Amino acid sequence: MLPLIALVQLVLAAPPFGGVDGYLRALNAVPDPQRIAQWHELLGSEPHIAGTEGDARQVERLRAAFVAMGLQVSVQEFECMLPQPQDAVVEIVMRGESAGPASPGPGARRGVIPLSIRERNLAEDPAAQHPGLTAGWNAFSGSGDVTAPVVYANYGTKQDFQKLKEWGIDCRGKVVLARYGGNFRGYKAKFAEDAGAAALVIFTDPADAGEKKGKTWPEGGWANDTCIQRGSILALEWPGDPETPGEPAEPGAAADGRPALALPSIPVQPIGYGAATQILSRMTGKAVPEGSGFSGGIPAQYRLEGGPDLQLRVKVIQDRARRRSANVVAILPGAVHPEQWVIVGCHHDAWCFGAADPLAGTIALMESARSFAEAAARGERPDRTVVFAAWGAEEYGIIGSVEWAEGHRERLLRSGVAYINLDMAAMGPNFGAACSPSLGEAIRSATVRVPQARGAAGEMVYDRISGGGRKDPQFGDLGGGSDHIAFNCHLGIASASLGSGGSEGNSYHSNYDTIAWYRSTVGADYAPALMITRMTNALAGMLADSPVVPLSAARHGREAQRMLQPLRDRAKAPELVAAIEPLQARAAALSQSGAQLDAALASAMATLGASDRERLDRLLVSLDRAWLDPRGLEGRPWFRSMLAASDRDSGYAATMLPLLAEALDAGDAARVQAAAARYGEVFTRLEKAIADAQSVVQAASTPSGPPAPLGTR
Amino acid sequence: MLPLIALVQLVLAAPPFGGVDGYLRALNAVPDPQRIAQWHELLGSEPHIAGTEGDARQVERLRAAFVAMGLQVSVQEFECMLPQPQDAVVEIVMRGESAGPASPGPGARRGVIPLSIRERNLAEDPAAQHPGLTAGWNAFSGSGDVTAPVVYANYGTKQDFQKLKEWGIDCRGKVVLARYGGNFRGYKAKFAEDAGAAALVIFTDPADAGEKKGKTWPEGGWANDTCIQRGSILALEWPGDPETPGEPAEPGAAADGRPALALPSIPVQPIGYGAATQILSRMTGKAVPEGSGFSGGIPAQYRLEGGPDLQLRVKVIQDRARRRSANVVAILPGAVHPEQWVIVGCHHDAWCFGAADPLAGTIALMESARSFAEAAARGERPDRTVVFAAWGAEEYGIIGSVEWAEGHRERLLRSGVAYINLDMAAMGPNFGAACSPSLGEAIRSATVRVPQARGAAGEMVYDRISGGGRKDPQFGDLGGGSDHIAFNCHLGIASASLGSGGSEGNSYHSNYDTIAWYRSTVGADYAPALMITRMTNALAGMLADSPVVPLSAARHGREAQRMLQPLRDRAKAPELVAAIEPLQARAAALSQSGAQLDAALASAMATLGASDRERLDRLLVSLDRAWLDPRGLEGRPWFRSMLAASDRDSGYAATMLPLLAEALDAGDAARVQAAAARYGEVFTRLEKAIADAQSVVQAASTPSGPPAPLGTR
Repeated sequence: MLPLIALVQLVLAAPPFGGVDGYLRALNAVPDPQRIAQWHELLGSEPHIAGTEGDARQVERLRAAFVAMGLQVSVQEFECMLPQPQDAVVEIVMRGESAGPASPGPGARRGVIPLSIRERNLAEDPAAQHPGLTAGWNAFSGSGDVTAPVVYANYGTKQDFQKLKEWGIDCRGKVVLARYGGNFRGYKAKFAEDAGAAALVIFTDPADAGEKKGKTWPEGGWANDTCIQRGSILALEWPGDPETPGEPAEPGAAADGRPALALPSIPVQPIGYGAATQILSRMTGKAVPEGSGFSGGIPAQYRLEGGPDLQLRVKVIQDRARRRSANVVAILPGAVHPEQWVIVGCHHDAWCFGAADPLAGTIALMESARSFAEAAARGERPDRTVVFAAWGAEEYGIIGSVEWAEGHRERLLRSGVAYINLDMAAMGPNFGAACSPSLGEAIRSATVRVPQARGAAGEMVYDRISGGGRKDPQFGDLGGGSDHIAFNCHLGIASASLGSGGSEGNSYHSNYDTIAWYRSTVGADYAPALMITRMTNALAGMLADSPVVPLSAARHGREAQRMLQPLRDRAKAPELVAAIEPLQARAAALSQSGAQLDAALASAMATLGASDRERLDRLLVSLDRAWLDPRGLEGRPWFRSMLAASDRDSGYAATMLPLLAEALDAGDAARVQAAAARYGEVFTRLEKAIADAQSVVQAASTPSGPPAPLGTR
Repeated sequence: MLPLIALVQLVLAAPPFGGVDGYLRALNAVPDPQRIAQWHELLGSEPHIAGTEGDARQVERLRAAFVAMGLQVSVQEFECMLPQPQDAVVEIVMRGESAGPASPGPGARRGVIPLSIRERNLAEDPAAQHPGLTAGWNAFSGSGDVTAPVVYANYGTKQDFQKLKEWGIDCRGKVVLARYGGNFRGYKAKFAEDAGAAALVIFTDPADAGEKKGKTWPEGGWANDTCIQRGSILALEWPGDPETPGEPAEPGAAADGRPALALPSIPVQPIGYGAATQILSRMTGKAVPEGSGFSGGIPAQYRLEGGPDLQLRVKVIQDRARRRSANVVAILPGAVHPEQWVIVGCHHDAWCFGAADPLAGTIALMESARSFAEAAARGERPDRTVVFAAWGAEEYGIIGSVEWAEGHRERLLRSGVAYINLDMAAMGPNFGAACSPSLGEAIRSATVRVPQARGAAGEMVYDRISGGGRKDPQFGDLGGGSDHIAFNCHLGIASASLGSGGSEGNSYHSNYDTIAWYRSTVGADYAPALMITRMTNALAGMLADSPVVPLSAARHGREAQRMLQPLRDRAKAPELVAAIEPLQARAAALSQSGAQLDAALASAMATLGASDRERLDRLLVSLDRAWLDPRGLEGRPWFRSMLAASDRDSGYAATMLPLLAEALDAGDAARVQAAAARYGEVFTRLEKAIADAQSVVQAASTPSGPPAPLGTR
């Protein structure tokens, strides 16, 4: 392990983060695990599903807390489609001899085995019995009542349905049984519906999150047999309110004139693996092929079909009403550049109590806001504005943040320096991040300043993620999947998602996602949340208070090089290679000119005047905007960033250089060439901005007064 | 005006308030009018009638704000009878020729003139159109639909109904019309019902709060012709939940086994003076006698009866369901004496937006809590515990605070040092207070330390209320009427109600009690609220951090002397005089011994050890408890303080030495003598505690080591 001082020098040698250390220390003197625990108790005290009364109370809690901090607070209401469950039934219906005796006993119906769609009550965690909790459900399910034979579709990915087709399994009219994992659940529903299924039942496989992983709740942290993952199955070509793409969903905004929406039409219902075992163990069709990856952790033969005697009844009734929720936005105006915004956000809505999702992030958001507010109350105010946003209705389809971003589009394009997302951020001691290329240096620099949660004395986050200083820490590519999507994919604002893991368990979207579960599984010491709060403070503090915004110029070209290589590798045809190779060369050159700019900026920092610094701020921010193309992606015009998008067939994963990647997927040479040309335009903008910035730095470094007159003596 | 330094010496010369100046300065460096304005916006953003969803959100706002301050917060739910209005109609029904044409036109009914029971919408204040607002109503009205002739009963006091009887006016079966003022509205309903009335209509007279006082809202601050005073008419012999006298109303607590309650049974409905004018101008009965005080400000002849052609229809439908609300209690534990509690409270519920009632006090409560929390965060924590309480459901019958006090009776009897109430406290620049005798010195001392709102440079509150130092400021006697009642009248805890006035207007319990009204009428500078916050900080800070609790011993006897004099003057019969005079003599002696104790304590303060100070704390606190008598008042056993009660025939006013005063009212010599004997017991307890305290002080002042040995050299 390198001594700390060497690390600091190593990191600070790169981009211009000087001059903010005192401020970052002031910020990070504030966070307190006890206070974080109190945020958790405040915000995790009742279920708060978007659009419900619990949600409205959550909005008021957040508002009041920010007001108490002395921040400028606004509650930004929106109105959008927020379905609510009305009724749901899942029953096994056995036919023929399998149906059992003709008189099955009082209250029973012949051959009918009702399956539980709700978590077991636990004496150990009375919170899980709260009357505001729901049975398991998937928001945006179609409404209907279907009884049909069963097909098992593994994770229900595009590939899984293709395999079923290859194996001659017909999903038409069937109830598809699929397990969670592998993709966003909305795609399971979409692919099932595309395959002609009559209904979809999704279960949590014990091999993925249950008893095969370890002890289950309440003995351990993993999903027990009744644990159900709720969640939205909205999978449109844009996030946010389905009825107002690209427009803010203001209360009362008429949604007429919109095209008919491709919302799910079949009933979709999630269950636990106890219920899934009841189904799987009664299936009699062909066993899943060996090596296919279709087998899971239920101790029964996984089969592709249920056979003639087994039917499933799936009844789901949901409304699709427009309801209200709100974002709570708290602003600390910058002392020097109030028009430059650093935004920190996390959603506040949950499917249940949300102790982990989202509160493991929201508590860090609150404690970070308190850190900035306390420092400001003591006279330490950052140069740039910091915005703390608690977003509404993320769970339904990333609605609150998208609507806010759409409603403030021009302002954000002008003012947005960076966005930091904290969804579920504090889930364990092991820090991780995904980010826009331009934020990689700043995040690394922040890790040097923050103690490792539950680490050795003096151990910093950097030490852990760099393997004791032996490797450059790597951060993931950022696509969609949470509230960064509008900033990252629609507005071209440098974005990061901070997180942490390393805890044994999973309560995701279940009634067990309670504070009791969190404290038992992630820990009652709130050390991960303290680490995340300090990381947020360090990163947002640097972004808000550095003399010039600490966005890396070099990383644009460097990461583009990295992203282009696998695309180049996939492009077999010479004309495709010919389209991509010039981009690789330009990316390499950009990496170099960017690195020169970063270095020149660092050494010239002291000589830069206020107007130079402002110009450089604008130019560095413009590098992220350079990736925007108003035409958007093919078939997904909302996605305007040519740098990053969410994977169109899985939802969660990031697709980098998506215009080019999708053109390659389509195998269409003309489309690849057109995409390459559009990346050429992006690179031209990057080159120009870097050159302009270099001129500003050079002009500032050159003595600007008149040359010393000759012959004066 | 005396120079400030002289004032400080004057005041500090009396009781022992030394050593806390630094702490009080730290506290009073915190309050900020802008922050107070933000509390107002936070808490006055929607109607929040107890038991409604708006109320539940208000509870969460308060909770979150206290959590954000870092205080220990608990939400204490209670469940009690909280009626809600279902329907109401007030109509003039003319008979005979006065009914007008037989076909009065489309939509009209012959002779029927519907009267408005709701405030006019105002373009100037859109808040008054909020969908959560109600029509005018009086909580706990009986339900019914009555049409009957009219009797006018002036203010509907006991005396007014007596006069009607003297004048031969029969209220039986009639609709009584009475104006607000003169007593608590619950007594109007009680007396009307006692007189046999079939219904009661209460109006705001323009001479009392409307256009005769000045410009009306929105041009000025006074009630316009549609302004309606809502409010509870609960008038039982105990405050709090009607169904759980003396017991905490915990959620789910069964209320069976309770005696039948004497709740109002006739319909009672409030109206504005526009509607009242419609009625009064159609009355044809006998004019009110000249000089009777029955005439008001409506430009019509006030008459005692409506005459044969005029009837009023009054329909009121209300439920009487048990609903939930909550107190929000935030604690800052004392550093030295955590078991000694100084409590600051104000209710949070309102009939409408509540910008004035209660928020003119609640905002000072919040800012005071923030002051203590900020000081604590900087390491300045008071010796004693300070409790900040936002009470629920005060408007229905002082329910939240009473239930909390009943639920914590033993703890409060042991730990309660003082209670400070802030209901509607910041209503103008002119400070005023009502208090228990023992708090008079501390409040005066606080006024020396707080700048006068909108005052001259250097002018303190003391300067204004002392007429520039020319008179000893007087504070009022404290009875009931708000959340101090349980502390003052049930638990014998030194209590104070801080307030301020001097603004031109009245929006009391109306839909016009909005932030717009408050800022226009009381002011947008929040200077009164700043003054009240600082007064609260100074008073609570002294009480919480003085080396010995700053409760005056002398004032017990001195104020008892003052209170006994008018009772002695009323007692004509020699046996009554004989009962009272000995008490006067003992009160005079108590005044003297108390003053000696106060002086001795002040000069011995430096020599007192920690255990002496703790003993003195207990003894001084016990002086207020000395007034408690477990037998309670005659017919009102809940009222255990023999010092102060609310007036049993008017509700709002304070009755001092109530056991004796009520016995005198009854003109029953034996009862007077028995009461005097019970006051003798109180005085004995006071004498003993003062003597004990004097011993502690003297022992501490006397060198306690062994006498210097003789002959050692």
